This record gives sequence, structure tokens and C-alpha cells, in this order.
Amino acid sequence: MRFQAGNVGAWTIDRLDAVVGEALPQAPRLEVVDDRHRHPATPTWLLRGFTSNERYVERQERSALTAVQQPLGRADATRAALIPVRKSDAWWELTQDDRRTILEERSHHIAIGLEYLPAVARRLHHSRDLGEDFDFLTWFEYPPAASDAFEELAIRLPSTEEWSFVEREVDIRLTRVTS
Amino acid sequence: MRFQAGNVGAWTIDRLDAVVGEALPQAPRLEVVDDRHRHPATPTWLLRGFTSNERYVERQERSALTAVQQPLGRADATRAALIPVRKSDAWWELTQDDRRTILEERSHHIAIGLEYLPAVARRLHHSRDLGEDFDFLTWFEYPPAASDAFEELAIRLPSTEEWSFVEREVDIRLTRVTS
Repeated sequence: MRFQAGNVGAWTIDRLDAVVGEALPQAPRLEVVDDRHRHPATPTWLLRGFTSNERYVERQERSALTAVQQPLGRADATRAALIPVRKSDAWWELTQDDRRTILEERSHHIAIGLEYLPAVARRLHHSRDLGEDFDFLTWFEYPPAASDAFEELAIRLPSTEEWSFVEREVDIRLTRVTS
Repeated sequence: MRFQAGNVGAWTIDRLDAVVGEALPQAPRLEVVDDRHRHPATPTWLLRGFTSNERYVERQERSALTAVQQPLGRADATRAALIPVRKSDAWWELTQDDRRTILEERSHHIAIGLEYLPAVARRLHHSRDLGEDFDFLTWFEYPPAASDAFEELAIRLPSTEEWSFVEREVDIRLTRVTS
């Protein structure tokens, strides 16, 4: 997927804030496009990522998630967030069991996210293996009524041990353009 | 990394056999090149993959591996193997804990590989997230004296439960061209 900021796009960028490290340039709109589409316009910035198999979720967590999670594109989910994150080399040098222990056993990343389902739908994109500036691009969609809940989620996760490995994070909030 | 088969390259292809599913076309030579290099020649086939963080190795296994493993490019490691593998959708739909259980607790993939260190050096490349035909390209280098040991390894791994998820595999053996 490609997240392209510029003058065109189906989403209005309401705000774009640096959380850790450098921000991204401001722009009025964001377009989310499949890699197969050609987009001749020169964007203000462009972030690329791919969806992939799950890296940490275990069997019981998968069951709990799939029982309640909702798809992207719901008619009432007119708010979105794009959160690009880069983790430190120290994170990537950890072994799988160490990363899992920090992510879930100690930071409860999956369990915290589960509390905000089904209101908040989510899709993770991997960028690190493409040589991008960020490691992950997480895309969230939620109805306006879930905005306060999402703000809470956006505060809880960064206060965990896992986030001590985050060396760059940008928080981008969006509203779908009504046509 | 790009693995390019054709008429040029630092490695002679001694044999190329299908293990599961379709083979790749025969060619006399293989070149292993960094993605940043331009290679204008049209190869007979081209496989792409990236190195990444470890997905299954745990702390104790990492310690055991790093204590004995050798780098690629040793002067006496004139033999190589390139083993492209694709696993089934059923594998990729498993959760992380299920994949780990099959790969190591039941198939002993890491433990078996460890038995052939330090003679056999190894580097794993990921291809699935690039939309390639194969999921993994594993590159092995070893001295001629370790050829019998490598043949044994090449028989032991495919006899495991993990390999029941392999739906395509090609075994390519090579000798470094002496200059």
C-alpha cells in the first residue's frame, strides 16, 4: 500500500504531529492506494508498506480478535489515524521471544488493542524490509463516536515498555471526504 | 539480494533439481548481487529476497548459534547451495506460536541446522512480502569436505513435519568459479 500526502485524496488531514523525533511535512489530503495503481501526481510525501503474516499474535489472541474485529471501509467509520513508527536497532536485535515478552507479556499491546474493538478497525503495514524511514504504518478507522476511546488508546500504548524502543513516531488524524 | 541465473556469474551451477513442484530453468552460472547494483544482462531467471530480523530464533538458540556460526565468503567455502522454498497458505494462516511449535518444538529446524555449524554458513532471504514465487531463498556455503554433511542436512530437514507445508522447493548446488 502507498500512503500519499498532497493536494488530492479521499482523506482530509486534520492534524499531523510528531510524537517522537521528526514530524512529516504538512499537507491537506491523504490518498491510500494499492501499489498496482499508477499515481502520476508528485506527493508531498509517500510512505509504503505491505501487509504480511502475523508476527506475534498467538492462537488464543487470534480467536479473541477475530470474534470482534471489524473490516476497514465501514460507512460510519469516517475518522482515521495513520501512525508511522520506527523502532530502534536495539529492538530489532532482540530475539523473537524477547520481542514477544516485551510486546505482550509486559506491554500488553495486543490485549490493550482488543479493548477498543470492534469500534476501532486496524491494519498493520510493514515498511522496514522495504528500506523505508519507518518500520510500521498502522492504519486505524473508527466512527466519530469512538474518537475519545481512540485518544485513550493513543495515550496508553506509548506509555508501555515497548514504546521505549520507538525512536520515531508521527500521529496523523484524518476525516473521510464526503462526496 | 538478487540471485541471477544465466551465462555469467561467480558460481557454476552444478545441478538444479525440483524437490517439490516445478523446477527452475537450467542455466550454467549464477550471480549473487546486491539490489543496488544495476545488472543490464537479461537473466534466465531472477529471484529476489531481503535479509530481515529473525522470526523464530529464541535467546538460548541465538547464543548457541552465534557461538559457532561462520560468515559467508570464507576462502575455503567453495561450494554453495541455493534452496528456494514456498510454503502453503495453511502455513501462513497459522499463528506465530503454532508456526514456532511446528518449526522448532516438533521439527527441530534450528537444532538440526546447529549440528552442521560451523562448516555450513547460512543466510536466509525473505521473498514472500515482495510478491515473489518463493517465500524464502536460503543460501548456504561450505567447504568441499563438508559436502557429505550438507547432503545429510538436505535429507533431514525435508523429512520433518514443517516440510509438509512446503509446496514448492528447488535444490540448486554450486561451485565458486576460481579466478
